[in-house]
Amino acid sequence: MPVCITDIARPSDQTVAKFKNAEVATVHESQGRKGLLAEYMRPIYRPARIAGPAVTCEVAPGDNWMIHVAVEQCQPGDILVVAPTSPCVDGFFGDLLATSLKARGVLGLIIDGGVRDVATLTEMEFPVWSKAIFAQGAVKETVGNVNVPVVCAGAYIRPGDIIVADDDGVVVVKREEADAVDDNVQKRVANEEHKRKILASGTLGLDLYKMRERLAEKGLVYVKQGEEG
Amino acid sequence: MPVCITDIARPSDQTVAKFKNAEVATVHESQGRKGLLAEYMRPIYRPARIAGPAVTCEVAPGDNWMIHVAVEQCQPGDILVVAPTSPCVDGFFGDLLATSLKARGVLGLIIDGGVRDVATLTEMEFPVWSKAIFAQGAVKETVGNVNVPVVCAGAYIRPGDIIVADDDGVVVVKREEADAVDDNVQKRVANEEHKRKILASGTLGLDLYKMRERLAEKGLVYVKQGEEG
Amino acid sequence: MPVCITDIARPSDQTVAKFKNAEVATVHESQGRKGLLAEYMRPIYRPARIAGPAVTCEVAPGDNWMIHVAVEQCQPGDILVVAPTSPCVDGFFGDLLATSLKARGVLGLIIDGGVRDVATLTEMEFPVWSKAIFAQGAVKETVGNVNVPVVCAGAYIRPGDIIVADDDGVVVVKREEADAVDDNVQKRVANEEHKRKILASGTLGLDLYKMRERLAEKGLVYVKQGEEG
Amino acid sequence: MPVCITDIARPSDQTVAKFKNAEVATVHESQGRKGLLAEYMRPIYRPARIAGPAVTCEVAPGDNWMIHVAVEQCQPGDILVVAPTSPCVDGFFGDLLATSLKARGVLGLIIDGGVRDVATLTEMEFPVWSKAIFAQGAVKETVGNVNVPVVCAGAYIRPGDIIVADDDGVVVVKREEADAVDDNVQKRVANEEHKRKILASGTLGLDLYKMRERLAEKGLVYVKQGEEG
Amino acid sequence: MPVCITDIARPSDQTVAKFKNAEVATVHESQGRKGLLAEYMRPIYRPARIAGPAVTCEVAPGDNWMIHVAVEQCQPGDILVVAPTSPCVDGFFGDLLATSLKARGVLGLIIDGGVRDVATLTEMEFPVWSKAIFAQGAVKETVGNVNVPVVCAGAYIRPGDIIVADDDGVVVVKREEADAVDDNVQKRVANEEHKRKILASGTLGLDLYKMRERLAEKGLVYVKQGEEG
Amino acid sequence: MPVCITDIARPSDQTVAKFKNAEVATVHESQGRKGLLAEYMRPIYRPARIAGPAVTCEVAPGDNWMIHVAVEQCQPGDILVVAPTSPCVDGFFGDLLATSLKARGVLGLIIDGGVRDVATLTEMEFPVWSKAIFAQGAVKETVGNVNVPVVCAGAYIRPGDIIVADDDGVVVVKREEADAVDDNVQKRVANEEHKRKILASGTLGLDLYKMRERLAEKGLVYVKQGEEG
Repeated sequence: MPVCITDIARPSDQTVAKFKNAEVATVHESQGRKGLLAEYMRPIYRPARIAGPAVTCEVAPGDNWMIHVAVEQCQPGDILVVAPTSPCVDGFFGDLLATSLKARGVLGLIIDGGVRDVATLTEMEFPVWSKAIFAQGAVKETVGNVNVPVVCAGAYIRPGDIIVADDDGVVVVKREEADAVDDNVQKRVANEEHKRKILASGTLGLDLYKMRERLAEKGLVYVKQGEEG
Repeated sequence: MPVCITDIARPSDQTVAKFKNAEVATVHESQGRKGLLAEYMRPIYRPARIAGPAVTCEVAPGDNWMIHVAVEQCQPGDILVVAPTSPCVDGFFGDLLATSLKARGVLGLIIDGGVRDVATLTEMEFPVWSKAIFAQGAVKETVGNVNVPVVCAGAYIRPGDIIVADDDGVVVVKREEADAVDDNVQKRVANEEHKRKILASGTLGLDLYKMRERLAEKGLVYVKQGEEG
Repeated sequence: MPVCITDIARPSDQTVAKFKNAEVATVHESQGRKGLLAEYMRPIYRPARIAGPAVTCEVAPGDNWMIHVAVEQCQPGDILVVAPTSPCVDGFFGDLLATSLKARGVLGLIIDGGVRDVATLTEMEFPVWSKAIFAQGAVKETVGNVNVPVVCAGAYIRPGDIIVADDDGVVVVKREEADAVDDNVQKRVANEEHKRKILASGTLGLDLYKMRERLAEKGLVYVKQGEEG
Repeated sequence: MPVCITDIARPSDQTVAKFKNAEVATVHESQGRKGLLAEYMRPIYRPARIAGPAVTCEVAPGDNWMIHVAVEQCQPGDILVVAPTSPCVDGFFGDLLATSLKARGVLGLIIDGGVRDVATLTEMEFPVWSKAIFAQGAVKETVGNVNVPVVCAGAYIRPGDIIVADDDGVVVVKREEADAVDDNVQKRVANEEHKRKILASGTLGLDLYKMRERLAEKGLVYVKQGEEG
Repeated sequence: MPVCITDIARPSDQTVAKFKNAEVATVHESQGRKGLLAEYMRPIYRPARIAGPAVTCEVAPGDNWMIHVAVEQCQPGDILVVAPTSPCVDGFFGDLLATSLKARGVLGLIIDGGVRDVATLTEMEFPVWSKAIFAQGAVKETVGNVNVPVVCAGAYIRPGDIIVADDDGVVVVKREEADAVDDNVQKRVANEEHKRKILASGTLGLDLYKMRERLAEKGLVYVKQGEEG
Repeated sequence: MPVCITDIARPSDQTVAKFKNAEVATVHESQGRKGLLAEYMRPIYRPARIAGPAVTCEVAPGDNWMIHVAVEQCQPGDILVVAPTSPCVDGFFGDLLATSLKARGVLGLIIDGGVRDVATLTEMEFPVWSKAIFAQGAVKETVGNVNVPVVCAGAYIRPGDIIVADDDGVVVVKREEADAVDDNVQKRVANEEHKRKILASGTLGLDLYKMRERLAEKGLVYVKQGEEG
């Protein structure tokens, strides 16, 4: 029985705010290298960066009816996540739906499928991360689920989980782990800033990370060219 | 026997002019969702938009000889459509051929293969929609057909059919259907503009398109989170 | 036994300098249509253009430890070439490694795998040609070889060979063939400039290259549309 | 307006019979190297071989409703050709539809999409050439066209054209060219049988096809290993 | 912190037994068209059919260490499910691991990666559904999780969920839904058997499913060839 | 200048004989995990197994002329290795060329492209490992090199290197390393046979390979389900 779940729990505004400037790669590392969507999920323009709670939407291949249902469930600051029930690159989403989402304050779209009207979406500054750009339109015949857990581009996403997306791709953070992940993000950012300065000064990572001994233990040997023997 | 068809019939200038500002997605919808080339056909730079009659050219894989033959058949406002006889991403086309086409007033290239010299083509503002960017050069050994019907990126294209290409991809309109399609395009554009305003004001698509009753008939139910039971 | 070869021979600065303005497509043609890396090797931003000697680095899938070893072997003007030992799109490389390479004067990275932090790399103007953009991080567990010959994206590359990369992709020139190749590049560039002018004036390639007779010999016939019989 | 064309013209039984033992590769060569479907079209079991007139069917992605309409249009000896209107690997077809087609004497299915129940289809000896094997089911919501020309896996196929399929893939022969193509097929088969005997006896193709002179003209030189100098 | 969950709950033997003869396509339909793994998951030999509870295992790309940990968690009748943390086609699994699994009574392997020693695995009659066949070996350096929920080939799988795999691919059934799904499977099988007989007798699906009226409502028209107007 | 190298050095018959029963996976491991061709290289029938010295052949895309040249360079026991100069899945090779190779005692073909006539090749028991099966024919227009080093499916292969191919794929062994590699192969086979027996008896790999301590050091913890806390 197809269902649209309403009144989903969202993380607090403070929690979401912490991820506004976080980078996808940093978030991914900070939560133990998990939560990344597949590498084929690319932004339709660059640079782009958003973070917010997920509203999830299942669609049948070539059918975007449920996106209209999902729009109503969106609140300002949300990110819409669309997952077809089988692989499909059709253009499920275009500028009219973007107009509607923008009117509701939605930050952007993550879709494991195709998108169209990308010239207009770029002008509107409505960011989309998608599997494809394709003008092929959709029908409105099949109902599905809104705000149930979905697998989108290989990642398991529940409504209210936090989505972070930038030029590197998309990552999901479980709602209940968000504050702990953010702590790690902050530490990591500070640490990377420190390391960046040292590396920029010419110090080698081999020395900064004290790798030489362990490399030798693993058997790495240095030989001059021509003396490989 | 390889053949080059000359003096092909083209749609009238007025007919072609109607498509100058049409979007690929709109044209595709306006002719009953047909005529799209595959989603892998991407522009080498964005934004880009062209419309015009097709001159068609078959090439052997890794062989661009027939493109030279096709150039002579091009008139100002034409679009060259190149289809290899088997899948090949070699760079069949580069800046010298673009110079020649530009000298003849050709608007751009659609190629179900590779293209090279894209930095120069971008500077020249000569748009190309292709399957790949690849520096691999071509030979000139095998003759083929010019201005016969071809299948290019999954679409059937005859010489003189109208090609429309923009950031979303490429669509073909049959010459004899062009005026009727344009009527639909105009209606659709007006209608979309109207809908865009309503949606921008916050009205939901569910209400604008009167979807709620039909969704209920199809069995969609709304449940609060935590009460899924 | 994993080995890091040091003190590799490099081409002379004069030899490298000759390739600074050469285009990938031209170099490829000038050395007899060889040396191209696969068409999936794309720059993370455009335009981009570099040329320099290769420092080569093998990595295990999902493991970037050896890149740290390779950094130390790099000199100003070098280009780092990274080849996984099996196909992998993980983000082996990000802004910290780029900072380190930039501090050493390295011009850019060629990697038959993934890269991350592309927004920062773009701001830093550190060019990368890669198979993918993916935030997935790497471990540091497995040692491999630095400065041994590698197959990278289908091309055989030895340390000290010259890499040329631009918006069309990447090509490798054998160190010992570099001067001869450059002679051909210069001739080709001059010749192409000449041809470009003639073609821009409206002369057809069919006439410039004297193709009509050979096309007829191969059996090409010209027929007016409607008279195909 | 969706349409089902009835009473399509078919080639004569004698014409079809000529292709019963023809190989796809031979037919392809015999009609000037055209008509092949894409290389991803593979038989679900091997060996398999069929030939017969096409009944064509367009389906929406993930929707197999029109296949039921097409079944009624099939006659004994026909081959059903199914083309989705956008790329889709869903399992549009399974053992129930195959039972129905078999009851009508249909020889097999060509589908630019997915198929399921392949174990049962194999037992039933109902051959299918498809893009994928996938259990994902289809809906029955969208009407399309039956017996209109389609592009299937890159080939343009009209109802009544002859389909030939074997372990190498699938080829289409235009109905009006079938007898001429068959003449070429017969000549080619006889010629190949002759060549096979000569080659089996150890005579080289270089000599049989008298290639040595032309190779030399094109610049091929023979050098002993170690004397490449 | 990497964790191996022990003593996982499994469905009862009776529940599992119900799925022994169920087909993947039928199970998929019977649970509302969900739970399918991606279409690229293919059996290394055909025919093959298994059903049993999942033991889940995360591996790093190119690293099969955790499979050894997972083996110990397996009981007779289990199916091992392996998911790399990023896309990788390396041969994580071969005949030695299969020997070990077979000694424990494990029925087969589902792996979203590569497998090797397929000739031996075929002789051993140890079925594997995988993304690739590839001899590339794995290291044993990185720890991960065993018996945590994983996304494998696009499906969300928890330890103890039921896996059903046959020539069409792989489907997962949630443990708590298994009995209800089986009820639907039984009904569906009975119903399909009934329909198969009717269709085999020549009755059309159009009539059996009473589709003609609804097709007409949707606008389908029948026209004789040559009278398309 | 295109060249055909004659009189290439081959490994001794004894050296080649050692690899006749070696498995690809074992050879790959025994030479330090190198030399594998890409995972897309699949045998046209299974089981199949060959080993022998490589005769190498470069072809232009869609052009098989040089295969005829290469045939003459083959001796009994050789394996022909064909590498297109750019990616191409055309059917470069069919039953006539196989007849010719079989007449010369060649064991099989490795081709980073397409092959056709696979039903006949299967009957002839002439094994082929290829990237694709495709009926698309080739022309004979462009000369290339025979018996020069090539990159084939990502592996660097020189004439006279030893090719080993089986159901898992293809691996190349450098001629000068063959005897050393074989020593490792023998040790590995003996060792694996020993391990197979132990594992078959039910001993776990965790114990056989003494992994428990190192897993604990790396942080792996065991927790009962429901006590993950």
